[in-house]
Amino acid sequence: MKIKLLIVLVVFGACFSTLAQQKSSSASGNEAGIAEKGLMKVSVMYPYADGKTFDMDYYEKSHMPFVAGLLGSNLVRYTIEKGVSAGMPNAPLPYMAIGTFYIKSLPDYQAAIAPHRDAIRADFPKYTNISPVILISEVIR
Amino acid sequence: MKIKLLIVLVVFGACFSTLAQQKSSSASGNEAGIAEKGLMKVSVMYPYADGKTFDMDYYEKSHMPFVAGLLGSNLVRYTIEKGVSAGMPNAPLPYMAIGTFYIKSLPDYQAAIAPHRDAIRADFPKYTNISPVILISEVIR
Repeated sequence: MKIKLLIVLVVFGACFSTLAQQKSSSASGNEAGIAEKGLMKVSVMYPYADGKTFDMDYYEKSHMPFVAGLLGSNLVRYTIEKGVSAGMPNAPLPYMAIGTFYIKSLPDYQAAIAPHRDAIRADFPKYTNISPVILISEVIR
Repeated sequence: MKIKLLIVLVVFGACFSTLAQQKSSSASGNEAGIAEKGLMKVSVMYPYADGKTFDMDYYEKSHMPFVAGLLGSNLVRYTIEKGVSAGMPNAPLPYMAIGTFYIKSLPDYQAAIAPHRDAIRADFPKYTNISPVILISEVIR
């Protein structure tokens, strides 16, 4: 009788401990995904103009993974968006594409990129003839 | 003896069922936060120039919640970022602030905003003297 009771208690204990771990890991997943407040963003924006080209396939599969791979654990995530239109009728498309790195530290980002700046620029002509505009910003919400 | 065995089985069953639910809810949380592929973004970008002002506090606490409140379940989430610097030395800051709506449907967004366009514009002078640039884009990654 006492052994069976012990088994029930051990099973209960194991279950609650696993539930507690699940709950805490799911909360930190949401923090990384949604509450990015305080992170820095490096947005590389490619302005649209007549005669400008952009190969999204190469950018997504080769250029962005290459740069992201230089950033180590400072990189929280990176995103890619494709410009579709301006918000106002008859206004020109502002950007053909934007690539964004969400990072914890701007100095660490700059230190990681600096030794590879030439290699990154040498990769540009493989997917675009646009000179990008870069915005450093802080996530407020 | 058989009753104790039954209790153990019921406890095991309850635990596994709860664990399965936890796992599936944590997966959908990640999808909303990180895997936003296919969503549309409406980015309202406020270009920097001499003499331009922007009240981030009003924007965060009043303007953005007001517009977000018009969008209903079409709005997945919205973000606010504060421009810090250009990526290149000596280049001017491209934008003082950017507000972004992540939405499921662009036509639904336009239909929800249209009847309130005048009210939204009337709110602009309360936080800025900048005419924003709007970019509609698609989340590729």
